Amino acid sequence: MNQNIIELLENKQYHDIKSLLETTHPGDISDIIESLPPHFGGIVYRLLPKDLAVSVFENLDSSFREMLLKSLKSEEVIKTLNDMSPDDRTRLFEELPAHVVRKYLALLNDNERKIANMLLGYKDYTAGRLMTTDFLELHESFTVTKALETIRKAAPNKETIYYCYVMSRDRKLTGVISLRTILLSEPEQTILELMNSSVISVQTDTLQEEVASIMAQYDFLAIPVVDLENRLVGIITHDDIIDVITEEDTEDIHLMGGVSATDRSLVDLTVWDNIKRRASWLIVLIIFQSFSTSILETYESALSSVVALSFFIPLLIGTGGNAGTQSSTVVIRAIATGELQSQDSWKVIGREFIVGFVLGSLLGIIGGVKAYLSSGNLLIGVTIGISLSVVVAIASMTGTVLPLFAEKLKLDPAVMAGPLITTVVDIVGLITYFEVAKFVLLT
Amino acid sequence: MNQNIIELLENKQYHDIKSLLETTHPGDISDIIESLPPHFGGIVYRLLPKDLAVSVFENLDSSFREMLLKSLKSEEVIKTLNDMSPDDRTRLFEELPAHVVRKYLALLNDNERKIANMLLGYKDYTAGRLMTTDFLELHESFTVTKALETIRKAAPNKETIYYCYVMSRDRKLTGVISLRTILLSEPEQTILELMNSSVISVQTDTLQEEVASIMAQYDFLAIPVVDLENRLVGIITHDDIIDVITEEDTEDIHLMGGVSATDRSLVDLTVWDNIKRRASWLIVLIIFQSFSTSILETYESALSSVVALSFFIPLLIGTGGNAGTQSSTVVIRAIATGELQSQDSWKVIGREFIVGFVLGSLLGIIGGVKAYLSSGNLLIGVTIGISLSVVVAIASMTGTVLPLFAEKLKLDPAVMAGPLITTVVDIVGLITYFEVAKFVLLT
Repeated sequence: MNQNIIELLENKQYHDIKSLLETTHPGDISDIIESLPPHFGGIVYRLLPKDLAVSVFENLDSSFREMLLKSLKSEEVIKTLNDMSPDDRTRLFEELPAHVVRKYLALLNDNERKIANMLLGYKDYTAGRLMTTDFLELHESFTVTKALETIRKAAPNKETIYYCYVMSRDRKLTGVISLRTILLSEPEQTILELMNSSVISVQTDTLQEEVASIMAQYDFLAIPVVDLENRLVGIITHDDIIDVITEEDTEDIHLMGGVSATDRSLVDLTVWDNIKRRASWLIVLIIFQSFSTSILETYESALSSVVALSFFIPLLIGTGGNAGTQSSTVVIRAIATGELQSQDSWKVIGREFIVGFVLGSLLGIIGGVKAYLSSGNLLIGVTIGISLSVVVAIASMTGTVLPLFAEKLKLDPAVMAGPLITTVVDIVGLITYFEVAKFVLLT
Repeated sequence: MNQNIIELLENKQYHDIKSLLETTHPGDISDIIESLPPHFGGIVYRLLPKDLAVSVFENLDSSFREMLLKSLKSEEVIKTLNDMSPDDRTRLFEELPAHVVRKYLALLNDNERKIANMLLGYKDYTAGRLMTTDFLELHESFTVTKALETIRKAAPNKETIYYCYVMSRDRKLTGVISLRTILLSEPEQTILELMNSSVISVQTDTLQEEVASIMAQYDFLAIPVVDLENRLVGIITHDDIIDVITEEDTEDIHLMGGVSATDRSLVDLTVWDNIKRRASWLIVLIIFQSFSTSILETYESALSSVVALSFFIPLLIGTGGNAGTQSSTVVIRAIATGELQSQDSWKVIGREFIVGFVLGSLLGIIGGVKAYLSSGNLLIGVTIGISLSVVVAIASMTGTVLPLFAEKLKLDPAVMAGPLITTVVDIVGLITYFEVAKFVLLT
């Protein structure tokens, strides 16, 4: 496909490209533009019919949107920015430097500029930032016939026509009605009779992850957003929610790997961005980690009298770290998906206690036998066996309890993941190991 | 709300409960049933009007669905199972033991049983398993008037009426048309003129994660599923895709934490389930980890002559493990979201090389100074400083390259995460450390 388009572009067969693009999905055209050399991307974009062009633009990755805007003539930029849906435009502006946003805001007509400024006024990661103002509103007094007429007229410019929101005279949200219900009803019935008045909505300052979990729970196509006075100000549609879920999961995964969140895509990040989001964590952890050195120093005499003790340090704390990482991973994810509610905490902790004990015993036997075989010293085998059992059990409990504790303190449980848990387990593990060793070997 | 319902249930004020439930969203009623004592849950379910009951049932968590089915009379079970949407029924059957599924299949009428058997015949985690057969089909020859009539008639039993699929006489999928397009068109226009014939579909054996990524890319409400002969056999709707994304992310996160995948929710897992999904990983890693013991044994003379060397082992390999975990986390997630395409691999590896070098130098200085201050020995400070720099740089590269390598080998990159990376880094880190030590301290 791309090779074909490049050939057509090189031969300036613009008419053929036009007809080729007309039968292609906007999502695919965006992919094509992203894969072409920049100057060709601009040409393809200009060949698109107007309504298709905006969809293609909205589907482009952020870095390509910026690039494309720079390559367009100013009247094309004006057209694109004014025609975009307000929520996609907010997303575009969020990623641009402030002076570029100011320049682009000046290119919007009065109405679109008012909308853009309002949306940018909401806090990051809230419903207000996600929503679009292109929603369909009906009034309680409308008949089905009138409603259908309204929908037909408004359809081309609305993000969805499948859920319509009903407002009272003072613009308060009073109900919701699906196009399905309208189509199935008699022409003379009124919206007031038909609508569902126990409508579920979110507020402009509701966090995006909460919006996502509400939409997932109710299987909504769209959800209305209201202000403090319950006036309808926007809607959020299903496609934005998929992006939110992916974004929130990425943030959690990164945090669990000890990396701070970022809005930029991996490929766009600079070396400096990468260092910033990683260095602070590594420094905190190395300072914390240096306690392990102090602990080992206090056991210097044990280490000098039985050098073989040091051979098993990585095995012991590594295995403890792995067990702790497993527990914390499972608990953090269960809290994030809402699977683990606080009333179940004790049940999970109790079960994990048994699991940790069993896994500890199992690994203790494996590790102890291996240590005995490699050192030829039964007492070292016993020391490793006992220490491993205890450390794995403690690590499992630590990995379970710390995320739950963070949740109680309203901190993000994802912080209590692999890197932090292994560091805690290192310290606890070393103390356990040398106390067991002192007891078994040195008495 | 719940306290209120419990009081009403205790006083047997069923009429009040009924009217209370009528204005409540099915998703909320499911939550209420889940929070009530089991015998009350069954009563509330029976009080629901028939069409609402099925939605409530479909919204229940799997363990509650099983419990509720057990508490219902057999004619109620028959009604519920026959009225469920086919995709939700597949999900229910997937989680039940085989003999229960056989019993329930026998309760279905011929048509529903045929559908249920067909859907269960597809492989786990494929489009066939996710899809529903309740889709709306139109024919090319229909006029808009005829199409609207068909839609109105079929609407109550279809999962969505907002996308309609067009079939030729031999049931091949030839196009898609949205209800929006139909509503905006003239009554005499035909579907053939209006439909989009470059329809994007998936096959029954397409993996669910691929279905999710296609739907996310095109912002679809629903996607058609075809068999090998391009005959339309089902559709997958947006709400199922949100579940798939959450499920796939959970699986990735678990694997990254060294825990095998499971279909059951954390709270429902038994001690034994938990041990099974964790033990195999821990055993593989402890065997791998035991190389670290062998390595340390070869450096016995160094360790006996400078005991202080052992004090820094946890600090060194811990910090290396953290840096490696960071890199692998970011790369694995970027591969999973499709952000990192193979053509960008070298760019990312190159950048990570510089990042690892800078972070290594930074941590080397911090660690080296700390080691010098705590040991009072400049050469130990230098040894730790150099080793830390090298280990962090190597760990960053390892964490970047291993997931990309796994991807090339068509393995799941999520395996190359924290637990495995830290184990690899332990071994590489120890060799580096003692070689540097031998060079700096012992020559």
